[in-house]
Amino acid sequence: MLIVSLLSDFGTSDSYVAEVKAVLLSQSPSLVLVDISHQVAPGDVRAAAFLIERTWWRFPPGTVHLVVVDPGVGSERAALAIAFRDHFFVGPDNGVFTFLLGDPGARIASLPIPPDASPTFHGRDLFAPAAASLANRGWFPTLGQEPPSKEPHRLVRAEPRLEPKGWSGEIIHIDRFGNLITNLSTKNVPITALLSIHSEPGIPIVRTYAQVPVGTLLAYGGSGGTLEIAVREGSAAERLKAKVGDRVLAQQER
Amino acid sequence: MLIVSLLSDFGTSDSYVAEVKAVLLSQSPSLVLVDISHQVAPGDVRAAAFLIERTWWRFPPGTVHLVVVDPGVGSERAALAIAFRDHFFVGPDNGVFTFLLGDPGARIASLPIPPDASPTFHGRDLFAPAAASLANRGWFPTLGQEPPSKEPHRLVRAEPRLEPKGWSGEIIHIDRFGNLITNLSTKNVPITALLSIHSEPGIPIVRTYAQVPVGTLLAYGGSGGTLEIAVREGSAAERLKAKVGDRVLAQQER
Amino acid sequence: MLIVSLLSDFGTSDSYVAEVKAVLLSQSPSLVLVDISHQVAPGDVRAAAFLIERTWWRFPPGTVHLVVVDPGVGSERAALAIAFRDHFFVGPDNGVFTFLLGDPGARIASLPIPPDASPTFHGRDLFAPAAASLANRGWFPTLGQEPPSKEPHRLVRAEPRLEPKGWSGEIIHIDRFGNLITNLSTKNVPITALLSIHSEPGIPIVRTYAQVPVGTLLAYGGSGGTLEIAVREGSAAERLKAKVGDRVLAQQER
Repeated sequence: MLIVSLLSDFGTSDSYVAEVKAVLLSQSPSLVLVDISHQVAPGDVRAAAFLIERTWWRFPPGTVHLVVVDPGVGSERAALAIAFRDHFFVGPDNGVFTFLLGDPGARIASLPIPPDASPTFHGRDLFAPAAASLANRGWFPTLGQEPPSKEPHRLVRAEPRLEPKGWSGEIIHIDRFGNLITNLSTKNVPITALLSIHSEPGIPIVRTYAQVPVGTLLAYGGSGGTLEIAVREGSAAERLKAKVGDRVLAQQER
Repeated sequence: MLIVSLLSDFGTSDSYVAEVKAVLLSQSPSLVLVDISHQVAPGDVRAAAFLIERTWWRFPPGTVHLVVVDPGVGSERAALAIAFRDHFFVGPDNGVFTFLLGDPGARIASLPIPPDASPTFHGRDLFAPAAASLANRGWFPTLGQEPPSKEPHRLVRAEPRLEPKGWSGEIIHIDRFGNLITNLSTKNVPITALLSIHSEPGIPIVRTYAQVPVGTLLAYGGSGGTLEIAVREGSAAERLKAKVGDRVLAQQER
Repeated sequence: MLIVSLLSDFGTSDSYVAEVKAVLLSQSPSLVLVDISHQVAPGDVRAAAFLIERTWWRFPPGTVHLVVVDPGVGSERAALAIAFRDHFFVGPDNGVFTFLLGDPGARIASLPIPPDASPTFHGRDLFAPAAASLANRGWFPTLGQEPPSKEPHRLVRAEPRLEPKGWSGEIIHIDRFGNLITNLSTKNVPITALLSIHSEPGIPIVRTYAQVPVGTLLAYGGSGGTLEIAVREGSAAERLKAKVGDRVLAQQER
């Protein structure tokens, strides 16, 4: 089975996702299409980067990941195809694939723009055909220019810092439950640390929600490998009026 | 074809649904994945119970239903696998499968928790692998502990009561159209009854929307087998400020 | 591969889409199901007509398009099956297929209503079984009454008019990004025209977003073949408080 995952800011009220899927299936009828999300906020490349980095490697080898959050569509920004650890990635050169760009094992090509492509919908007219080709044929010599003439764009990523008081990081994603996902790795922060955010000084790290009373703030090693802050059966985002980028400090308990 | 249906409160903005699907497809690439819904309100087990009871039996025999609304994830609550009338069900023991628990034909096992499972994402690390195994192999001896050591949890369900004035029931679901779905069976309530809710005293039962003028309240035997209250080309939920649990009375017309 | 595309106003919070899919897969387990959208506003036939006209032809030949926005369900309105340019269409006779009704190549049949169909859910009980049959067997003699006894219903479509000042059209869709999609064809309006809407007098036509500064209004030939108005990295719908039906004028620049 050849799988294409789809991640975009297209929403699900318009025909855009279906047009992309129709192009994929027209070119390769046996593809299995799996939505990651189409609810990325319009143009929010950083949010898409978070989602694809977290998700891609759980798919079977050979999967093509079509990631189109593309505010620069039609401009001079390059269109990329990437082979990385038996997976393929296709999307605009806007930093969404920053997580793999440092890796010497990544093969990167810039894709030619088909002459009849809509200047505002490369997802359908450029990236979908490229994804279908990659799914069917794997990496192929005439795919594009390899390497691209310009170094791919990278997002500056917020990295946690070890400060005198403890690890300092930030919120990198807020999920549907209002859970605050930080960039503090569970490998660095000891289980005995207390997390502070805004004026909340000492949130203990526990294993799971059920270990605190309903309505209580807690922290835990999240399912993506970093610390998260939540309210049991509630929303930490609402409680703390937290947003992406807010600072979180992990202090060693004393 | 092996089908897995998915029902959760994960929403579609995060990577959670895709992570579950990636695990399913990694283990069994030929699975056909069908979303029931991921828009269940966070932790609303009762809403998920309504949706799965209504939908499961329309799928082909052999379908595995993965139902993960799991506020107790990581706690002592059991993880269940169930075989029932040629279908399989997988999910936390929180009452979501109440509709089948009374049935002597149901086989129930409690699933072991994989040692490396995230304590906050059993959907991905426990239930998805179990669902893929069930889809591929059917019920198998080493699946888990059968029966579970603890009687599975049941929701107390609102049952309609025959009162002197007529059948008394309640709203059990409000759909996207603002239609109010009650628990009053069309088998019990005569077609000549009048429904009352809040201060609306005599809503007649008709066959379909088109039998009343636009903007008018009506009742009808709904597509799930119970009475519903709607406004033609409008929202009964908005009109009546109704919510799940509100009482509905079916009085015999005189 | 046999593909069924699905377009409805069912939303994704209820079980309705899944019930339709379960019926399709029960009748024909190898179908590939592709959602166009289920977020059409309740009963908005015109919006569904826009989406299906734009999308259907990108799918492979043989695709069945199941389009159920059906405020007249259960009334006397006919149920249609249509064969048109190697595609099939199934849905209520409410004008949603207006775009193809004028074509002499379209074969049209009215479908019988199964006696046990829910009077409020023909999507599941009538159209889904018909779609599965069409996907499997193609057009078949006993499908229904061909042609229907009544001429299919047509929507009156807003056509652009050439006025002394230039082409006059209107907004026919607003997408997730707040882009305003007009009915002004890029074939008629010269690239040098200026678009005016509300009190905005002279919006220039450019190739793509990146050609104007962030926050600026622009017009461009959209991916559906008509002119669109947008705000770069913003929402034209919000900026202009625009809605479907608002008039747009394309004046020749002087």
